[in-house]
Order: sequence, then C-alpha cells, then structure tokens
Amino acid sequence: MTLPTAPVPETTPELLYLLSADPDEFADVVGALPPADIADALRRLPPEPASKVLAALPFDVAVSVLDAPELEYDRAGIVCKLGLPDAGRLIDAMSADQQADLFRDLEPEDRERLLPLLNPHTRRGLTLLLQYEPDTAGGMMTTEFLTVATTATAGETMELIKRVSRNKETVYAIYVTDPATQALAHVVSLRELLVADPATPMGNVGTTRTVLSVRPHTDREDVARLISKYNLLAAPVVDRDRKVLGIVTVDDVLDALVREGTEDVQKFGGVAAFDEPYTEMSFGAMIRKRAGWLCVLFLSEMLTATAMQHFEGELARAVVLTLFIPLIMSSGGNSGSQATSLIIRALAIREVAVRDWWRVALRELPSGLVLGAILGVIGVARIALWQSLHLYNYGPHWPLVALTVGFALVGVVTFGSLAGSMLPFALKRLGFDPASASAPFVATLVDVTGLMIYFTVALVVLHGTLL
Amino acid sequence: MTLPTAPVPETTPELLYLLSADPDEFADVVGALPPADIADALRRLPPEPASKVLAALPFDVAVSVLDAPELEYDRAGIVCKLGLPDAGRLIDAMSADQQADLFRDLEPEDRERLLPLLNPHTRRGLTLLLQYEPDTAGGMMTTEFLTVATTATAGETMELIKRVSRNKETVYAIYVTDPATQALAHVVSLRELLVADPATPMGNVGTTRTVLSVRPHTDREDVARLISKYNLLAAPVVDRDRKVLGIVTVDDVLDALVREGTEDVQKFGGVAAFDEPYTEMSFGAMIRKRAGWLCVLFLSEMLTATAMQHFEGELARAVVLTLFIPLIMSSGGNSGSQATSLIIRALAIREVAVRDWWRVALRELPSGLVLGAILGVIGVARIALWQSLHLYNYGPHWPLVALTVGFALVGVVTFGSLAGSMLPFALKRLGFDPASASAPFVATLVDVTGLMIYFTVALVVLHGTLL
Repeated sequence: MTLPTAPVPETTPELLYLLSADPDEFADVVGALPPADIADALRRLPPEPASKVLAALPFDVAVSVLDAPELEYDRAGIVCKLGLPDAGRLIDAMSADQQADLFRDLEPEDRERLLPLLNPHTRRGLTLLLQYEPDTAGGMMTTEFLTVATTATAGETMELIKRVSRNKETVYAIYVTDPATQALAHVVSLRELLVADPATPMGNVGTTRTVLSVRPHTDREDVARLISKYNLLAAPVVDRDRKVLGIVTVDDVLDALVREGTEDVQKFGGVAAFDEPYTEMSFGAMIRKRAGWLCVLFLSEMLTATAMQHFEGELARAVVLTLFIPLIMSSGGNSGSQATSLIIRALAIREVAVRDWWRVALRELPSGLVLGAILGVIGVARIALWQSLHLYNYGPHWPLVALTVGFALVGVVTFGSLAGSMLPFALKRLGFDPASASAPFVATLVDVTGLMIYFTVALVVLHGTLL
Repeated sequence: MTLPTAPVPETTPELLYLLSADPDEFADVVGALPPADIADALRRLPPEPASKVLAALPFDVAVSVLDAPELEYDRAGIVCKLGLPDAGRLIDAMSADQQADLFRDLEPEDRERLLPLLNPHTRRGLTLLLQYEPDTAGGMMTTEFLTVATTATAGETMELIKRVSRNKETVYAIYVTDPATQALAHVVSLRELLVADPATPMGNVGTTRTVLSVRPHTDREDVARLISKYNLLAAPVVDRDRKVLGIVTVDDVLDALVREGTEDVQKFGGVAAFDEPYTEMSFGAMIRKRAGWLCVLFLSEMLTATAMQHFEGELARAVVLTLFIPLIMSSGGNSGSQATSLIIRALAIREVAVRDWWRVALRELPSGLVLGAILGVIGVARIALWQSLHLYNYGPHWPLVALTVGFALVGVVTFGSLAGSMLPFALKRLGFDPASASAPFVATLVDVTGLMIYFTVALVVLHGTLL
C-alpha cells in the first residue's frame, strides 16, 4: 500500500522541532501532509503544544485538520487552548457537522466563551444541528449542500457550483426543489449534470427515480443501511414538508459504521460501549464502564450458589456429580453465545425481523438437540474411556453417571441455543438494543438453568442408586 | 424514513401475478422500482421463477438487479436458469466486480458453459479479476474507470465523459496518467473537473496532493481504512509500475464493512464465520459450522473435570466449596470476555499495535485487581449476610470460607482480564485473526485456571480447619 509510510510516530517530535526551529519551513513541510495524518500526530500531543502546532499551520490546512474525524476526541481540548480570535475564525471555517460535534464535546463554560466569536450564520447552523441526538440523521448531517429550483437550467447550476464550491467541501449531488413549496423534488448527480445539455431545466436532468430521503430523527444505522443499499453518496435529510435540512454523506456513514462495529463487539463482550479509544480512556472511567455489568452479572450468577445450596444433600451424597458441573455449564453458555451472535447480526442487517422469532425458534430447537447430542455422545465416551482405562474411578454406578451427563448435555445445549437465540428478540421487543444481549449475559442466564437441568436429570437417572 | 414502504414481502407474489397476467404492465410497474428492491424480492423466489421474472424485465433494469449486492447469494442459481443467449448478454452488461463475484460462485461446469457466451473484452477482464482473493483490493475492484493523459485538457476530458459514461456506471474521479509510462500521476475529482478552465491540461487541474493508492493484494480492511480515513470515494488499485488496474469504490467498502462486522460478531460468539445469511443456510451446514468450535471447546473444557478429579478429596471434605464454583468460574470468564472484546476492536481499528502488548498488560493488571476486589467484597458480603440472616449455614468456619471466595475472585478476575487481553495479541502474533479470540474461547481458557486458583486459595486459607 502506498500510504505515506507510517507518518504518525515519526512526525510528532519532528513537528515540534520544526516549529521551534523555522516556522516558515514548518508551514511548508507540514502543510503538504494529508490533514488526517496531521490530525493523527496532534492526537499524540498534549492540548497546549497541539494548539500551537495548529495555529502555526496555513489557515486552510488547520481547518481541514480540525475537520478530520480522527481528531474527534482531542479537538475540544485543543480548541480551548487556542487564542480567541484564532479559535473563532477556525471554527467558522469548519464544516457544519464537525462544528456541531465540537460543540457537543465542549464544557458549558467554553461553549459560552466561544459562541460569541462565531459569525451569526455559523451560530444559526449550530443551533439547528445541536438539537438532534448525535446518533440520528440530524446529528450526523452537514448543512452545506446545494439546492436549485426545478426551473434553473443545467448551465446556471454549473455556474453556481463554480462560484460557491469552496475547496474543502465535497459536492456529492444537487438537490432540486419545487420553486413554490421549496420541497425536495429531484436529485441530480454531478455526473448527470456534467453530461446534460446546459439549456435543460434541472427538473429534467438525469433519470427520474424515487427521491430517497431520511428524517432528522432517523437512526444512524438506518441511514447507513439506506446509503449502502441504494449506493448513494449522500442522503438528504428532510423535514415534514420535505424541505431539505441537510445531507448525510457516505464518509460520515463509514465512520459511523466503524464506531457501530466497535460498540457491537464491546457490548457483546459485556462492556458498556466506550465512547473513547481504549488507550485514551482514564483508568477510573474504564473501571466504571466494566464494573457495572460485571457486578450485575455477578449478582445474577449468585443464583447458581442458591441453586447449589438447594441440592446440597445430593451433592454431599454424590460428589462425583460436581466433577462435571463446569463442563455442563460452559457447554450451555457456549451454545447460547453462538446462537446469540448469529441472531444479533441477523437482526442488525435485517435478515430477520422480530415477527420471525418463532421461525428462528423452530430452527434452534432441532439445532440445539443435534448439537447437544453430539456433545452428549463425546461426554459419555469420555467417562466410559476413563473408567475402562482405569484413569479414574467414577464408582460402581458409572454407566448411570455417564448417562446423566449425556442427557444433561442434550438438555443444557438445547436450552442454551433456544434461550440465546430468543434473548435478542426479547430485548428488541422490550425496546432495548438487541446487541445488549452479551455473551456473559447469555452465559449467566444459561448457567442457573443449566444447573437445574443437570440436577433434575441426576435425580431421575440416579434415583435409587446414588441419590 | 421515506423508504418505499416494506416493499419486499408484498411484491413477491405481486411480481409473479403481474408477470403471468400482463407482461407489458409488469415491465412498466416493476421496472420503475429501485433495483435493490427488485433484488430483495427475487431472493424470496426459487431460482426458476426468479429467472423468469428477470428475463421479463427491461434489459437495463435486469442488469442493475443482477448488479445489486443484495442478490449476491442467489445470483449464481438464477443466472444458471436463464436461457443461454439472455444470460450472456446480461452478464456482459454487468459491472466488472459483480461479474467476478458471480463467476466465483458458479459451479465449474456452469462456468465453462457460460464463459464462451461472453464477449472477449468481458472474458479478459474476468480472467484478471478472478486471480485475486475476494477479500483483497484486487478481488473487490472494478475495472471500469476513466484514465486520461496529463496532457489532455479539462474540456477534452469532459467530452470523453459525456461519450463513454453509461447510465449504470458511477464516475467518481478521473485518474490522470503519465503519457510516457502510463503510471498514475494525479487524481481529479468530478467537482474539480467541473470548475476547471476547459483549456487547462489535466495534470494541472485541482489540488496536487499525494495520490493515495493500494496494491491488488492489499487486505479489504486496509482498503476500507484508507478510504474512510482520507474520505475518498474510490481508491485506485495499481501494479508495481503504478499502472491503474482498477478502482475500489466506497459502496463496495460499505458492503465489505457490514460483512466484516457480521464476521467479527459471529467469531466472537464462537461460530465459524457464516458466508451465507442465517435464514438461507441449510440445517446441515449450520450444524457443521457450529459443532466444530463447540466440540473443540468441549474437549478443552474437559480439563475442568480433570482438575476437579485432582481435588476430589478436598471436595468430599468441604462440599461447601462446590457451591461457589459456578460463581467464581463465570466471573473469570466474564472479565476475560470484556477484556478480549476491548482489545479485538482496539487492534482492528489500529488503536493499539502488537508491540503495545506490555502497555495493555500494565493496564489490565491493575484493572483486574480492582474489578476482582469489587466482586470479592460483594462475594464476602453475600456469604456474611446469608450466614447472619440464617438463610444458609456455611458451617462453623464460614468467615474462612468467605475469605477463600473473596481472594479467589480477586485472583480469577485478574487472571481473566490479563489472559483475555493478551489472547488477541498472541493470536495476531501467531498469524491468526485476533477476532478468533471468541468469548467461549476465553471463558474456557479461564475456567480451568480459575478452578486451580480457587482450590489453591482454599488449600492455603482453609488448611488446618476444613481441609
């Protein structure tokens, strides 16, 4: 890959050295690097020197660096350290969606200090964007987009683009609105505009197709799905009257998908989703994020102790039964965790809907029985083998012990597959994110039931012999 | 969201009804739907009727439907049922990356039957694309892109685009090559072309920046990272001499990211990655995918039985110890699963590198101690509470039993956090995908060690009293 070779670790000290030695050379050398790489280098510096580096960059480059999503977690700190007139000019020039992200991260006192420095246009845009949740279309959108009336010609539109399109902003498409109502009527891609006869009114340029749009409160995942499914470069966000409020671009969706993927894996691992990178989160914050779920799971898992206390007499009489407790419990947890991971993703990419739960259940029931039978046979074989090779003596009733383990495995794995696959549906039905069905959550759910299944099978099979 | 409201389940029977009733009306009505929606509807049909529907669609629409990634899993089956001249013409018109995907899915005999029907140009392109693995840049790229010489003018390039750009293909950028060596020298975006003076040579249009490119064998995830980081709409794939072989577009990257996300969650759940949707996979295939890992985990977990056998004497003397086995084991598994999920993602999005393992270890060690201490205190409190409320009698030595449980929890959770965080590093170092470190894998690893820690603590604390 011909990426600028590993620029980040090397450039950070270089940046500071250059800056102190020769500010002009600094601006030349660093200004030629891709903004995303400068942003990466700034992340490795404390806010104070990072703001000095930023202030020494050519204005356009500094704006692009501030716009880079890579800088997201550090941006607020750096901006606060900038001199006041500088900060205002830089923020004014940022793209609208990144301005909103920045202001979401600022402390209230910094927000009040910086807001008066911005020009009225920026302030109005910010007020609009800040009213939406960051994981909705409104919170992701930018307010920089091009609209023209259906009656404008292709030639006029071309002239408009030449006039307004600044360097930093990417024009993905032109949104064509009804001149009377301002409602979105048509979308023309840049390529369609390019090949159109300059005299054609914009309403007739390109193919007429259903104009796909989203509402400001549409969930981030649904926006991503729309853009990905219909291969859009941007999706317009419209209000109730179909007036365009902003656009969500494909690069914001890419960033959102990567973040969503991280959240999904973290949630499945049983961690409250981190909104900061692992390496940058403070020790205390990390402990809080992890301890919460861990304690909830621990308290639920205490039910296993209660269940075991209930069977104390059986345990004392047949200590041999305890040997297989971890094996049986973990098999239930593992099969549950498999089923949950499959259904979480199938729900996320809309392969199945909540109403399909019974179809999934009808599939997981036989799956669980077959998988349980496979493990059961291995379990029985292992006991028989150890016994006949005299590796261990499971007592005179060992065939019954082996049967108990085998039947318990069938029951536990079947229950695990069924419970694991139904949990995401149940969570979604109750209004929670199905991805909250973490592997530890499923394991805990299955552990208690698994013990009950094991002891019940033991009571039936070993009645009159060991128990 | 103003998506065509839930078109899929409703249109499938309608499609067939319309087709049998009035083929002309069918072509009109269905031809106006977005191709991705028609593809969704076709997925619900068996290959035979789906191929009939496809053949009855207007040619351009049929091509777009075949190009839709939604149809991917069913495309080969449908194409095989098409009449022969039809199939050839449709495949010829598909986009090059989708042609390659189709041919990867065809059975060898179908491949041989269909290949002679294609025109020589398509065949050459296919041969090039099929030599790359599907999860590399070469396997994802399309060979439809625009190159012009640095000496061509902006005006000439505009004329070229008007002439060659067909409806279905999306021109994202123009790749400008050195006329002598054909090497990639510059990239011009459509917007930059639009605002350029028609007389300017293409070598001077737009901003000069480092031209980012990838090699054909670059991994899918690295392509996605490049496109996402530098906000590209497409990345050129170049050979050793920097000649452009093809381009990977942002919509292919979006699809790849969604698929990658699914694989990651499934792997973390302990399932071999499914390459088909859950709902479309045959029962036998699903059992095979799940049984493999489940059996491996089961066989490893058998070590817990061996460990317990080793402590059989202690278990018989102190049955009270068995009550807490599930609680202690699951706490280790849960903390390990948290740590693993954090590190898998941090590695995937390159927040940490393999060489950072000791930094992570230095962080996880105190995290584990603190988290273990929290659970330990809760565990001790629970035993003391039950004992003093006479809910259960843990025997005369109950304070020592409580201490054993508390210390064991500290040890097990610390070990779990440390082992869980180091496992992805170890796997990556050994050349495996770090995402193979599934939650069940970690739990199994921690279970056996957890038991050993518990019994060792018990031997020390309870020596001379219970043991």
